[in-house]
Amino acid sequence: MNKKKHWHESRGTKPVKSTGEGQEFPGTGEGVPPSAVRNENIRNLERLFSPKGVAVIGASAQEGSVGRALFENFLNSDFKNRVFAVNPFHESVLGKKAFKNVKAIPQKVDLAVIAVPAKFVPSALRDCAQKGVSNAIIISAGFSEIGERELTSELEKIIRENPGTRVLGPNCFGIFDGKSRLNTTFSETKRTRLPKAGSVSFISQSGALGVAILDWMSTQNFGLNKFVSYGNAMDLDESDLLEFLDHDKATKVIAMYIEGAKHGRKFLEIAKKVCVKTPIVALKGGISEQTHKATASHTGSLAGSAEVYRALFRQTGIIQAENMLELFSFAKILAGEPLPKGDRALIITNGGGYGIVTADSVIGNGLRLARLGRKSAERLRKAFPERVTIANPLDLVGDAGLERYSVAIEAALKDKNVDMVIVLVLFNTPAIDEGIVKEIAKWKKKAKKPLTVVSIGSEFTQGMMKLLEKEGVVTFNYPNVCARALKALADFAEFRRESNGK
Amino acid sequence: MNKKKHWHESRGTKPVKSTGEGQEFPGTGEGVPPSAVRNENIRNLERLFSPKGVAVIGASAQEGSVGRALFENFLNSDFKNRVFAVNPFHESVLGKKAFKNVKAIPQKVDLAVIAVPAKFVPSALRDCAQKGVSNAIIISAGFSEIGERELTSELEKIIRENPGTRVLGPNCFGIFDGKSRLNTTFSETKRTRLPKAGSVSFISQSGALGVAILDWMSTQNFGLNKFVSYGNAMDLDESDLLEFLDHDKATKVIAMYIEGAKHGRKFLEIAKKVCVKTPIVALKGGISEQTHKATASHTGSLAGSAEVYRALFRQTGIIQAENMLELFSFAKILAGEPLPKGDRALIITNGGGYGIVTADSVIGNGLRLARLGRKSAERLRKAFPERVTIANPLDLVGDAGLERYSVAIEAALKDKNVDMVIVLVLFNTPAIDEGIVKEIAKWKKKAKKPLTVVSIGSEFTQGMMKLLEKEGVVTFNYPNVCARALKALADFAEFRRESNGK
Repeated sequence: MNKKKHWHESRGTKPVKSTGEGQEFPGTGEGVPPSAVRNENIRNLERLFSPKGVAVIGASAQEGSVGRALFENFLNSDFKNRVFAVNPFHESVLGKKAFKNVKAIPQKVDLAVIAVPAKFVPSALRDCAQKGVSNAIIISAGFSEIGERELTSELEKIIRENPGTRVLGPNCFGIFDGKSRLNTTFSETKRTRLPKAGSVSFISQSGALGVAILDWMSTQNFGLNKFVSYGNAMDLDESDLLEFLDHDKATKVIAMYIEGAKHGRKFLEIAKKVCVKTPIVALKGGISEQTHKATASHTGSLAGSAEVYRALFRQTGIIQAENMLELFSFAKILAGEPLPKGDRALIITNGGGYGIVTADSVIGNGLRLARLGRKSAERLRKAFPERVTIANPLDLVGDAGLERYSVAIEAALKDKNVDMVIVLVLFNTPAIDEGIVKEIAKWKKKAKKPLTVVSIGSEFTQGMMKLLEKEGVVTFNYPNVCARALKALADFAEFRRESNGK
Repeated sequence: MNKKKHWHESRGTKPVKSTGEGQEFPGTGEGVPPSAVRNENIRNLERLFSPKGVAVIGASAQEGSVGRALFENFLNSDFKNRVFAVNPFHESVLGKKAFKNVKAIPQKVDLAVIAVPAKFVPSALRDCAQKGVSNAIIISAGFSEIGERELTSELEKIIRENPGTRVLGPNCFGIFDGKSRLNTTFSETKRTRLPKAGSVSFISQSGALGVAILDWMSTQNFGLNKFVSYGNAMDLDESDLLEFLDHDKATKVIAMYIEGAKHGRKFLEIAKKVCVKTPIVALKGGISEQTHKATASHTGSLAGSAEVYRALFRQTGIIQAENMLELFSFAKILAGEPLPKGDRALIITNGGGYGIVTADSVIGNGLRLARLGRKSAERLRKAFPERVTIANPLDLVGDAGLERYSVAIEAALKDKNVDMVIVLVLFNTPAIDEGIVKEIAKWKKKAKKPLTVVSIGSEFTQGMMKLLEKEGVVTFNYPNVCARALKALADFAEFRRESNGK
């Protein structure tokens, strides 16, 4: 039942005290303060995600241990570069030669993943610094999150004295890279899946929630670029990661779960800069006064902080997701769609009721229903049979095939009175065949405004939507989820326009 | 491409005029007014859903015709009772003997499904009345929804003169019965699935949206009792159906899509009665002024009607779903959970961040976080290791196995300060095994308050959740969707208390 007893017990954190080591904003900065020196190499974190050589310190063959889960994940992964086991008690681990310590490894090591009991972490990290390892991920828990002062100070000191070794953690799940397939999490591969490569990067203050989200992402059609669980953020904090991801070409959108910023001022300044180029969607844990207190009961300044975060997000341009569903749908739409010029949506449909319901969601979420311009209205009037009323929703009626959809989408994309297009398709009507996938994808590739597809149904419909997603079309099952995401996109576009000088 | 051209063209409705024949509330009652005589047999509609003999008038072998799709669905279905083809032009249809008209069928016919061109519908219906057929479903379109007055009046007259034959439609998809497997829709079975039998019945004013929802329901873990697309509601309207379903023992919850009630006063009175026993969840299409006009442009009295519906729903106790996602999640929770005594939720979790996010959703949706009573707090304090803080969220921490979950759930169910329990399980932690399914299910069976499970993840997690659903446990992926549904449940419980007392 309780195979990982030792490790889990050492990880047990007081939940009301936070799942990470999140500091109240403005941050009191218990950890090592950021310095110009340390930040110089922030853009060089590439090696953290694509290391040439990796040492797993604490690699173990012991059933149920974190060191085993971690090392096994490496052995079974698609990560191509060299991985070394470090274990002072064994000659080999799971058939691989084991080194006494990281310094004993003759090759270059870019990354050390440390998963030894807390009391052995300082010496392991010291070894890494001496070996010249540029990045270390400390998976081990047992530091400030359980109120352990001595070990925490010792670790902070080592970090301060060795700026050449950047540290992620402690008390974290580490990273997963969609492209290099580097996976330092110890999640059970039988129970979790890793997402395909994509353009969304996700950073999480909570490890367990992060891994659950990682697992869930694998079921979604959009891919992941980089995943980081940063735990106590003793060295690298959320701001450093934001800054790095902003410069990372493969990251188009940053999604994050945050309870409290490590250094409030730093977070404010960096987030402001990042949002100019890379959209950030943030789910703040502890957004109500009540839960806020739960996440931050170990700091002094509580009052009004949930509101402080709302204001901070608004000011920096961070798009606040109110819940996990929004975190996903906002990230998805930001990754797949261009920014709209306004908030006027045209709904194209082959089902009247579905169109009405979607129009309700469009209006209910604060978007406007577009009015087709005179020219496009005239063009459509000529192209369509009389029973198609030229309105919004534009109901192409039940016998609409891809021709009618094509004409309607073209008109919508050309019409300056339309800022975004929501295409509803009930795929189970006989006039629709698979050709519609290519047709919509063709227009999507040309589109300079958001063009999303919404549909609902079982296998056949889901299959068509998967094909659309493969072609780069963003799809949703629920009109209200789509409309809410488009509203967030439109708001962000407005923020961009305003910050670019109106 | 356009195989069903003839039929679809005849069905083409002006979308801005509504997808059904929805009348403005208060209804102007264009159709046949309800009468005491007609309502007498409303409870005897069982035969509509479980007819002994069915005649398909317009059964056809012609590729792409509605008559063929419909009849084929019958031939391929699990519906066990006799089905007769009626087609005056052929001796047989798809290998089955065809009768010249319904009167020529020697056996008893409980239900006639009419799918002939509009102009032939009156004589077909007259035949049904003469034969003594108790129910007829008119699938055919081409009546008031396209402004066709003459045929509409003729049909209304026949209905008025033959109260022994109750009519569903015209311009509808008809019905599906989860238990008898009767399916009068002509949806393509290759593209749509039918849900398993369950306790939710769904009535829809929109046919196409209704069928899409039917198809989507098949992907959900809760089952369907009866589905009705009632179209123009010339005879049987949404109020009749509500009344019938209220008396139908297999229906625990009624979900509905409505644009406008046929007879406003009747709807108000019947809905009021029904809500005392059977909860109704309604998605109103055209809820904003703008879309409302779109659904009802063919009637005179428009002003304020969206608000009139909100008030009507509040007054009767109908639970209003703002969107399709809510329609599903509300129906699901009403079908699976008892009504809570209050709005205080306890969150049990094995992931701190997940607990915090859920607490945010609980508060954000207007529920309260329960405070454990002193006795249960003391009991839990003794039962759990020190690192488990007795609070809400109650974080059992990462190494919690089913024992800890069991102790926590038992305490929550016993504690009078807890009105509902949200159990979060990150199934990918090694301390969790499949035994937790039986354990939670055991408590669920004993529970007299709502007890739902929320989790997120890929195959393994979804598999565990399916097992839970099979055991009768209601599950959700997103905490906010669960919290929103629980809030609707708590509000409905309050409505019930108020209408039962005071």
